[in-house]
Amino acid sequence: MFFRNIPGGMPMAASDTVTGLEVHDVRFPTSERLDGSDAMNPDPDYSAAYVVLHTGGGPPGHGLCFTIGRGNDVMAAAIRSLAPYLVGRPVPATAAGLAALHHDLTHDSQLRWLGPEKGVMQMAAGAVINAAWDLAAARAGLPVWEFLAALTPEELVALVDFRYLTDALTPDEALAVLRAAAPGRAERAARLKAEGYPAYTTSPGWLGYDDATLVRLARRAVADGFGQIKLKVGADLDDDIRRMRLARDAVGPGVRIAVDANQRWDVAEAVRWMTALAPYAPHWIEEPTSPDDVLGHAAVRTGQPVKVATGEHAANRVVFKQLLQAGAVDFVQIDAARVAGVNENLAILLLAAKYGVPVCPHAGGVGLCELVQHLAMFDYVAVSGSREDRVIEYVDHLHDHFSDPAVVERGRYRAPTAPGFSARMKPASVAAHRFPDGPVWRARRPPHRRPGEQEVPV
Amino acid sequence: MFFRNIPGGMPMAASDTVTGLEVHDVRFPTSERLDGSDAMNPDPDYSAAYVVLHTGGGPPGHGLCFTIGRGNDVMAAAIRSLAPYLVGRPVPATAAGLAALHHDLTHDSQLRWLGPEKGVMQMAAGAVINAAWDLAAARAGLPVWEFLAALTPEELVALVDFRYLTDALTPDEALAVLRAAAPGRAERAARLKAEGYPAYTTSPGWLGYDDATLVRLARRAVADGFGQIKLKVGADLDDDIRRMRLARDAVGPGVRIAVDANQRWDVAEAVRWMTALAPYAPHWIEEPTSPDDVLGHAAVRTGQPVKVATGEHAANRVVFKQLLQAGAVDFVQIDAARVAGVNENLAILLLAAKYGVPVCPHAGGVGLCELVQHLAMFDYVAVSGSREDRVIEYVDHLHDHFSDPAVVERGRYRAPTAPGFSARMKPASVAAHRFPDGPVWRARRPPHRRPGEQEVPV
Repeated sequence: MFFRNIPGGMPMAASDTVTGLEVHDVRFPTSERLDGSDAMNPDPDYSAAYVVLHTGGGPPGHGLCFTIGRGNDVMAAAIRSLAPYLVGRPVPATAAGLAALHHDLTHDSQLRWLGPEKGVMQMAAGAVINAAWDLAAARAGLPVWEFLAALTPEELVALVDFRYLTDALTPDEALAVLRAAAPGRAERAARLKAEGYPAYTTSPGWLGYDDATLVRLARRAVADGFGQIKLKVGADLDDDIRRMRLARDAVGPGVRIAVDANQRWDVAEAVRWMTALAPYAPHWIEEPTSPDDVLGHAAVRTGQPVKVATGEHAANRVVFKQLLQAGAVDFVQIDAARVAGVNENLAILLLAAKYGVPVCPHAGGVGLCELVQHLAMFDYVAVSGSREDRVIEYVDHLHDHFSDPAVVERGRYRAPTAPGFSARMKPASVAAHRFPDGPVWRARRPPHRRPGEQEVPV
Repeated sequence: MFFRNIPGGMPMAASDTVTGLEVHDVRFPTSERLDGSDAMNPDPDYSAAYVVLHTGGGPPGHGLCFTIGRGNDVMAAAIRSLAPYLVGRPVPATAAGLAALHHDLTHDSQLRWLGPEKGVMQMAAGAVINAAWDLAAARAGLPVWEFLAALTPEELVALVDFRYLTDALTPDEALAVLRAAAPGRAERAARLKAEGYPAYTTSPGWLGYDDATLVRLARRAVADGFGQIKLKVGADLDDDIRRMRLARDAVGPGVRIAVDANQRWDVAEAVRWMTALAPYAPHWIEEPTSPDDVLGHAAVRTGQPVKVATGEHAANRVVFKQLLQAGAVDFVQIDAARVAGVNENLAILLLAAKYGVPVCPHAGGVGLCELVQHLAMFDYVAVSGSREDRVIEYVDHLHDHFSDPAVVERGRYRAPTAPGFSARMKPASVAAHRFPDGPVWRARRPPHRRPGEQEVPV
């Protein structure tokens, strides 16, 4: 049975409730190759704590937290602990229902103590909230970006928790941002469907790749139509200078090359390193230091000539608020699965729009491209109204495990058309990669145990 | 068998290893009364995810995370996920061993993704690291504060992770702080044993108490020798003005009254509220807004006349660094069980000492008084060298569940003399309060389920 519902309209019949919350610890053995390797994360096993919300009256909702291996079981436990908020609850199919769910999950004082609003519990809330958005959009028969773009400015503002934001953004100011973008919505949505949204690719630049691979993949990226690539940096300055030069020679002066230190440096080190790389014209330096260090990012931004990007590990809207207040960033990098779901990302989009800073989402991982494309497209249609200087990260792996994978052609994300959040994983992929009991891990388990790690009865 | 070991000396024989990691979800039904109620946390069930490290060659080590109920099972799962780092490891009985353990737990790139360095995983690391400190100090036959105070400045500096700190505090600067305090250590330790360390009490000020209880308990606090009390504020301004006036009348002008908003306000609200309370001379306003909001705290500090305190929910040393860099706080409130254990708190003590800001620890909860007294006393002996304007919070409940409870007499913490971290819970208390299977909860479970909460198969 499939419902269509008008966004912002009345909730479904009371009998249409969430009947179950299913969680899977899904891991991919990506550390066997060096895809995904960077200066802080040498051996990630890309993983997802994957949640399915079953309902009485329609198809299930899907969401996930992305992790890089160990601890994915803790994320799964955190998601399970939220089951009492979901099971038995009427399906939150409207903006009001989604606002109430977000409020309940982030304002429970006992759970809030475990953050507050950060880390494992915040990501767990995000996975569940995003699954509810998948559910709601699917019932409306719309992809999440269009479902969001069909809401009124007032409905959108009501989705946001303005607590701790009002010194930077009031509800009235948010409303003004959204109303200013309202007139062109239909035209921009049409343009998006026709043209897609610009992407950049990180695939050439993993730190574990040798020079020949880097050059080959950088050239291929340009041939594939990307106007921007990204290199991982931060392990060794001489290596980075050489790699940056090779990449610049490979792509020419007209293609942007972003660099990403993945939090490797202290402030002075970031300034020194980027001053040395500046002659090769990096487009931005991403995560130069701790994601919590607002003042550190501001110091890096003023201390060297390259623009600063961060956000994929920023814990919540309060950190983004300060990054903007302090003038610490040139690009805001939202992540679909780190904060408390669509609702908190909406707050961040509104903050960035007010401060006039472009949003260039972090993606890759497991399902992050699938999810975040909806938020960037909604931002273009209904919030910032612009694609200028905006790109969504793209990494070309693990998409085949999703039923509605992100599609990038000629360097652009195609606008999703399937209803929902593109978050559904193929059941066969989930079954194969379940940790530790799926066949992929049963075959691999012994070599993947940490050195010195023992089986312990806990 | 009981070992004595010299702090900073050689590790125990290789056969003396950690043999098991035991975790208990322990909860106290404190929400039945209104002890612990504040503007953000109306119904806490004070809880601990309690960890015991078993060893092959001596008594076990004990540590805990404090939570306020729901989610304590997630904390327990996070602690369990750290077992592979402990079990089979030689007992880290020296400073070098404790530094290595801290590094391994906080630099595992896969686990770090779940924070980074914040929330559930950081607290779990803290519980385990603190349990290792309990183990090490017990084997040295010293309480943790004396075990720490017996380490050389060089050994102490080697315990700290300076990543992200060097723009505010370098290892050399930390060494200078510790060397400056070295000469008076023995004299201050002797004074501490004779005089104890000043405490303040929050017992009169819970938000759920009626006026008569507030006045009675405030008077009793003064009679008991406390020079400072604390009131919870932030729910209703008129109520707070009345309660503040009653408290001021009850204790007189010579006793300090701190107030605590528990993160309730936005910046403008904090300024307005505290401007209204200022005539009653509050000693500090604690947690006026989000614990992540460094710039917000700075704005509150400059916007109204009352001094600002925060830190119990600050996620890590990077947040404390910025609070000090931004001039956002007058008092630094460390918490023994929120950051990554003794090692990270040592970093915070050193930062505060360099910036000349007094540390006034947060306590209460379950076991926080027991733990944090050691850190404040060590700070006095070997870091700041001062008790001036410094007080440790004290809340008079749940101490009887500990084998070596904190003792406060005439408004002062008595210096602990028993070896270890005072973190051991009585086995009978653990057994009685285990959630959900202990007798205390078996008797109570149905009424304590949340409204609308259902038993779900997860």
